[in-house]
Amino acid sequence: MHVDGNRIVEIGPPREADVTIDALGKALLPGFVNTHTHAAMTLFRGYADDMELQSWLSAKIWPAEARLTPDMAYWGTKLACLEMIKSGTTSFNDMYFFMDHAARAVDEMGIRAVLSEGFIDLFHEDRAEEELRKTRTAIDRISSMRNPRITPAVGPHAVYTVSESSLRALRAMADERACPFHIHVSETKGEVEGARKDHGKTPAAYLDAIGVLGPRVVAAHSVWLEEAEIATFARRGVAVAHCPVSNMKLAVGRAMPLAAMQRAGVTVSLGTDGAASNNRLDMFESMKMAALLHKFAADSATVAPAAEVFDMATRGGARALGLDAGSIEVGKLADVILVDLHRPEMTPSHNLVSNLVYAATGDCVDTVICDGRVVMEGRRVRGEIEILAKAGEIAANLVGGAS
Amino acid sequence: MHVDGNRIVEIGPPREADVTIDALGKALLPGFVNTHTHAAMTLFRGYADDMELQSWLSAKIWPAEARLTPDMAYWGTKLACLEMIKSGTTSFNDMYFFMDHAARAVDEMGIRAVLSEGFIDLFHEDRAEEELRKTRTAIDRISSMRNPRITPAVGPHAVYTVSESSLRALRAMADERACPFHIHVSETKGEVEGARKDHGKTPAAYLDAIGVLGPRVVAAHSVWLEEAEIATFARRGVAVAHCPVSNMKLAVGRAMPLAAMQRAGVTVSLGTDGAASNNRLDMFESMKMAALLHKFAADSATVAPAAEVFDMATRGGARALGLDAGSIEVGKLADVILVDLHRPEMTPSHNLVSNLVYAATGDCVDTVICDGRVVMEGRRVRGEIEILAKAGEIAANLVGGAS
Repeated sequence: MHVDGNRIVEIGPPREADVTIDALGKALLPGFVNTHTHAAMTLFRGYADDMELQSWLSAKIWPAEARLTPDMAYWGTKLACLEMIKSGTTSFNDMYFFMDHAARAVDEMGIRAVLSEGFIDLFHEDRAEEELRKTRTAIDRISSMRNPRITPAVGPHAVYTVSESSLRALRAMADERACPFHIHVSETKGEVEGARKDHGKTPAAYLDAIGVLGPRVVAAHSVWLEEAEIATFARRGVAVAHCPVSNMKLAVGRAMPLAAMQRAGVTVSLGTDGAASNNRLDMFESMKMAALLHKFAADSATVAPAAEVFDMATRGGARALGLDAGSIEVGKLADVILVDLHRPEMTPSHNLVSNLVYAATGDCVDTVICDGRVVMEGRRVRGEIEILAKAGEIAANLVGGAS
Repeated sequence: MHVDGNRIVEIGPPREADVTIDALGKALLPGFVNTHTHAAMTLFRGYADDMELQSWLSAKIWPAEARLTPDMAYWGTKLACLEMIKSGTTSFNDMYFFMDHAARAVDEMGIRAVLSEGFIDLFHEDRAEEELRKTRTAIDRISSMRNPRITPAVGPHAVYTVSESSLRALRAMADERACPFHIHVSETKGEVEGARKDHGKTPAAYLDAIGVLGPRVVAAHSVWLEEAEIATFARRGVAVAHCPVSNMKLAVGRAMPLAAMQRAGVTVSLGTDGAASNNRLDMFESMKMAALLHKFAADSATVAPAAEVFDMATRGGARALGLDAGSIEVGKLADVILVDLHRPEMTPSHNLVSNLVYAATGDCVDTVICDGRVVMEGRRVRGEIEILAKAGEIAANLVGGAS
C-alpha cells in the first residue's frame, strides 16, 4: 500500500518511498472509528463502578465534573487519545466539556475527531443561553484551528436534559456551520417513558417531529428504539452508535434492536462510551461484546457474525461520521493500522476476521497511521510517559477534592 | 513478599534472596485459576465461529478431532499454556484428549493443571470399556510423572454423552485414585430437557441420585441449574466453573443463576472454556464478561461487583481445584503475578480492583511465578517463537486435511 499526503494512492508491491514500514507478519487494516465516547472521562476510570446510574451521576460524577478545568479536560483527552491509538482507533466522536482544549489534545496526538461541546440546559432559559454561547465558542475556536482532522459538532445531551427550543437552536447552528449532530437517544426505558409523558412521543419520534433528525446525526445507544423510530432513522439517514459494553455495565435492560436496524438499512457503528462506563476505550473489546451480546440476546450463535461486527467498527463508523475512510481502498484517507499476528491469541490463523473480533485486543496493534502520518510504531507513542504521569496526578486531585 | 521453595513465607520489605524481582510500579496479585478449559482446542481457534452448536460440532470440530494426534495435543496445550501464562493464569482445569501428552506440555511450561481425559461413550458398552482404559492409562502416566503441579482427574463429558455405569465407574476410579471429577452440567436447555426425558430428572439431580457428586467435583457451566440442584451442589460441596464468554458466544439461553448460588454458598469460580468457543484464554476478559453479563441479565448495575468477580477468578478457583493458593498470604503456594500499572488503561489509579476487572486485559501482566518459579518476566516466556510456529503449522495441517 502506498500513501501520498493523507490518501491511499496505490495498493501493490513495495516501491521507493520517503518512509517505508515493514509489515511482515502483520495485517494491514483500516483504523477503527469509535462513534461515541466522552474522552476526558478517562480521569474518572474506576472512580465509581458497580453503582446505579442515577446515584453514580449525582453522588460521584457531577460533583467531580463541577471541579473540572480546561487543563483537566486537555489531559484527560490526551490520555484517551493515547489509549485509543494504542488499541487501533484512528477517529472518534466525542461529547464533553471544554472542547477547544480537547481539540488541542487531539491536534497534538495526531488522530481524527468530531468534537461536540456537551449541551445540557435542564429546561432553564438562562442556562440554555449560556450553553448556546459555549457551543458557539467551541465551534468557532475549533474551526479557527483549521485542522482537517478535527471537526466541531453540536452535542445536545438527550431529550430529558435539553429543551425543545435548544434542540431547534442547535439544529439551526449545525445547519449554518455545516456541523454534525451528536445526541444520546433511548439509552434507558426510563428515558422513553419520560419522553412519552413530557412530549407524548418516544424520543426519536419527538426529535423527528421537531425537525432535528438528518444525515449527519449520530444517535448514541438507541437501545429502546421502536420499529417506527427505526424506520425514521433509516429515512432520515441517522446513524446509530451502538455501545455494547456500556449498555451491559449500566444494565440498560435489553440489547439494542440490531437485526431490525439492519433490515431497515440504518447505519450501525460502534462506540466504547466513556471510560467511566466501560472502562476501556478498546474497539476490539467492543466488537467482541457486540458479537456476544446479540448472540446471547437473540438466543442464536449465528447472529452478529465476526465480519459484520468488524464492518460496523470500520466502514459503519466512517459512514456515521461522514469520513472517507473505514476501508483499505485507493483514494481513501490513509487511516490504517498494522496488527501483529505473531502472538499466542492470534495463532493459528484459520480466519483473520474471527481472530480479530474474538481473540485480539488492542494490544495486538503495532502501528497506527492517521491522515497519512505515523502516530504509533512498535507500540511507541510520543509523550506516553508524560501523559500517564500528568493525567494520573490530575485525576487523583480532581477526585481527592470530593472527599 | 518472600518465597522459599514453592511457598510464600513472609510478606514484608525487601531482604537478601537468591532471586530478587523489582516490582516498582506493579501490583502483586494471586495468579488466576481457570477452572474450565479444553487447552489443546487452541488449534481450532477461529476455525468455525458463528455457527449453531450442533452443526459446529458435527460438521467441523468432530471430523477435525478425529485426526488429532498426541503430538498435536501436546503443541495445542503448549500454545494454551503460553497464552494463559501471558495473561496471568497460573492454574487451569483441563478436559481433552491424549492428556499424558498435555501433561508433558504443562510440565515444560511450568504452570499448574488438573488434567482429565475427556470421556464420551455415547452409551455403547464397548466404547465405555475402551474409554475407561484410556482414563486409567492417562491417570497412571500422569501420576508416574510425580510432578506436584500436575494432578490427574476423571472427565466424563456430560450426562447426555456418558452412560450411568461409566459415570459410576469414574466416580469409583476417582475415589480409588483420590482424583478430582470434572464434568459439564446443564450448559443448555436441551441438555436439561434430555435428562428429564432419559432419566426423569434434571442433570444435577440425576448425578446426585447415582452418587457421583462430592467435594472435588467441578461442574462446568451450570447455566440451567434449578433451586433444588443449587442446594444439592452446596450440600455436596460441588464447585461451579462459570464460563460467561462461552455461554454468550454459544447462546446458551440465559445467565447462570449466580445470585442463587452465592446465597446457597456454592463455590463459584471462572473458566474461559476452550479457544474454539471463546476464543481467548484470558481470565481478565472472563472477569469483565462475568461482571457485565450478570448486571445485564439482572437489570442492575450493582450486581457482580468487581471485588466479587476478582475473588471468583482467584480464591474461588483455588477452592474449586483444592489448591492452597488464590491469595497472597504466608503459607500459600507462590502462584503470583505482577501487573504493570504504567499503562493508559490502568491510569488513573482510583481503584485497583475496578481497573483489573473493567479496564485491564492479560497484556497488563508483566511477570508470572508458579510454584515459586518464574515462568514469565518482562512478558518473555521461554520457547514462545517455537510454540507459535509449531502450533500454527500443526493447526493448519489438521484443518487443511478436512477440506
